[in-house]
Amino acid sequence: MQKLVVELEERSYPIYIGSGLLAQPELFTAHIKSNKVVIVTNTTVAPLYLAQLKQSLSAYSVTEVILPDGEEHKNWQTLQLIFDGMLAAKHDRKTTVIALGGGVVGDMAGFAAACYQRGVNFIQVPTTLLSQVDSSVGDKTGINHELGKNVIGAFYQPQAVVIDTDTLHTLPARELSAGLAEVIKYGFICDAEFIDWLELNIEQLLKLEPAAVRQAIVRSCEAKAKVVAADEKEADIRAILNLGHTFGHAIETEQGYGNWLHGEAVSAGMVMALEMSASLGWLDASEVKRGIKLLSSANLPVCPPLDMEANTFLKHMSVDKKALDGQIRLVLVKEMGRAVICADYPASVLQKVLTTDYVALSQ
Amino acid sequence: MQKLVVELEERSYPIYIGSGLLAQPELFTAHIKSNKVVIVTNTTVAPLYLAQLKQSLSAYSVTEVILPDGEEHKNWQTLQLIFDGMLAAKHDRKTTVIALGGGVVGDMAGFAAACYQRGVNFIQVPTTLLSQVDSSVGDKTGINHELGKNVIGAFYQPQAVVIDTDTLHTLPARELSAGLAEVIKYGFICDAEFIDWLELNIEQLLKLEPAAVRQAIVRSCEAKAKVVAADEKEADIRAILNLGHTFGHAIETEQGYGNWLHGEAVSAGMVMALEMSASLGWLDASEVKRGIKLLSSANLPVCPPLDMEANTFLKHMSVDKKALDGQIRLVLVKEMGRAVICADYPASVLQKVLTTDYVALSQ
Repeated sequence: MQKLVVELEERSYPIYIGSGLLAQPELFTAHIKSNKVVIVTNTTVAPLYLAQLKQSLSAYSVTEVILPDGEEHKNWQTLQLIFDGMLAAKHDRKTTVIALGGGVVGDMAGFAAACYQRGVNFIQVPTTLLSQVDSSVGDKTGINHELGKNVIGAFYQPQAVVIDTDTLHTLPARELSAGLAEVIKYGFICDAEFIDWLELNIEQLLKLEPAAVRQAIVRSCEAKAKVVAADEKEADIRAILNLGHTFGHAIETEQGYGNWLHGEAVSAGMVMALEMSASLGWLDASEVKRGIKLLSSANLPVCPPLDMEANTFLKHMSVDKKALDGQIRLVLVKEMGRAVICADYPASVLQKVLTTDYVALSQ
Repeated sequence: MQKLVVELEERSYPIYIGSGLLAQPELFTAHIKSNKVVIVTNTTVAPLYLAQLKQSLSAYSVTEVILPDGEEHKNWQTLQLIFDGMLAAKHDRKTTVIALGGGVVGDMAGFAAACYQRGVNFIQVPTTLLSQVDSSVGDKTGINHELGKNVIGAFYQPQAVVIDTDTLHTLPARELSAGLAEVIKYGFICDAEFIDWLELNIEQLLKLEPAAVRQAIVRSCEAKAKVVAADEKEADIRAILNLGHTFGHAIETEQGYGNWLHGEAVSAGMVMALEMSASLGWLDASEVKRGIKLLSSANLPVCPPLDMEANTFLKHMSVDKKALDGQIRLVLVKEMGRAVICADYPASVLQKVLTTDYVALSQ
């Protein structure tokens, strides 16, 4: 097991990463302050890991809240199920909410923990690669509204994050790859050496070789923790975590959520961001190719949908949250391993990037 | 006009108190950071003061959200109206939410501000005496759940509080008195000289004499700010603000919310707390009488409902939020002007207090 600490002054918290951690009660008990806990999970994860986690928490009175699975349930009605369960079981403000599942479960359970009695303890147990490397570090919690994703929420830190890499064995291959998109992203935005490492280890990661998986997660969490600690409230620096996300959100929105997984859309979006960086003279064509090759080797898409036109991209991109006063701010790559936020680019460059033949580029 | 500053390090904020403040744009503009604001008010307050506030905000694009009036609407469905209005008008994270109304409007608008895009600016414009002296200082926001009051919410500070004492001229007399219960409470818990002042000025307050009203609000806000600053997260000290509230909540719950106003229930509850303090030997009978006389002179009830039995009180009190591990913690008065939190009293003393003849006591 490895332990990282996310340094946030009095709100610092540990991330435990390793195999078999669900079966280690002491990782949890150190962060629980009463005799009651609530486990929030979903209908997919509960049959796989709920019994094991409850076994480790047998010293506590446990309330289970099992949510329907899926982003379409990330709304107030589902959040209410958590409050209903906690209030019915008379949890007081010393209780601890434990999120067992992927990003949706973590975001909702975290927001519930932030709001219940105006804030109770919270432990994340992310069970997907995406949530292990992304949402478990940082403090964004929340739900969707029919007029926008993640528009209602709170900044709220967990007391601890427990990442049991064994849970990845039940993750569908497509979701594993989608998680790798975010892992690779950390290389592009802030860790050039990590790109080298990933090129050497991508096969081991796809085979879930334990040491490689642990190292990839540790390095991803370290990268995100570094960015988040530098900019806790997303004033500016933190936005580099959104490399590929503005293009990617446009793809997700146009295709309908769920048809492209988030990581898949981010993968194609990162290719577009790399290509735009090259058009601005920051990267060589060979570096774009290198990025495409790494993403492809992780079984990720590297071309946006063929039928998606430039105007369709622009329509969706201009309402992105990162658009300030109508101007589209993009995260681009100044050099491999260093991302920047950029709004002062020629419109013609963006237009060119939106009309590039990515199928040809990725040959 | 008087200005107080609630000292909370980087989150300190000013409270402006005086006559005609709604017509002073500069009090607002200093705390707004974009060209958009949303005013949240209700169907009772909107016809009285919305036009005047909008006049002062004519330099901004204003979204109005007018909620139904009443504690029974302090729930998610109503909160959603705020999010709906803000998202439909495309407010971004630089927007400012302005609460124009009493405590329910302030609690809901503040919670919406805390959650919208994970936190936007917030200005309180409380229009009832209760909200001016209570909810405008401190950082408690939230909504009710059918299984509990204020169980879902956030600690969230406003950027500023603007108290225009002219708004009290449209407040029903009964609500003015209910607000005075909380004003008097500050005397009992932490300001013995304020009790003397209130005894001399209660008639001027009931007549809304401007200088007296301003002074009562300033002194109440100072008292609350002092307690809140000492204990921002309600670890302990802050609980003294709940003098009379545990008994009072039992009265409100048993009678059904709305039949007794909150301040009325707190008034009777404070009499019970004074009587219990006397039973423990901390106060003289004459001091209890003095408290009763002051509350009576503000046209407040000083006796709990005649038909409410000891067991009924105990049933409601034991589920009060201040009950830790099933033991009923009470706020009592150690000496006039100094409240304490007490859990180690003989059960017989509480039993006696719950069966006292308050009609006889208040003669």
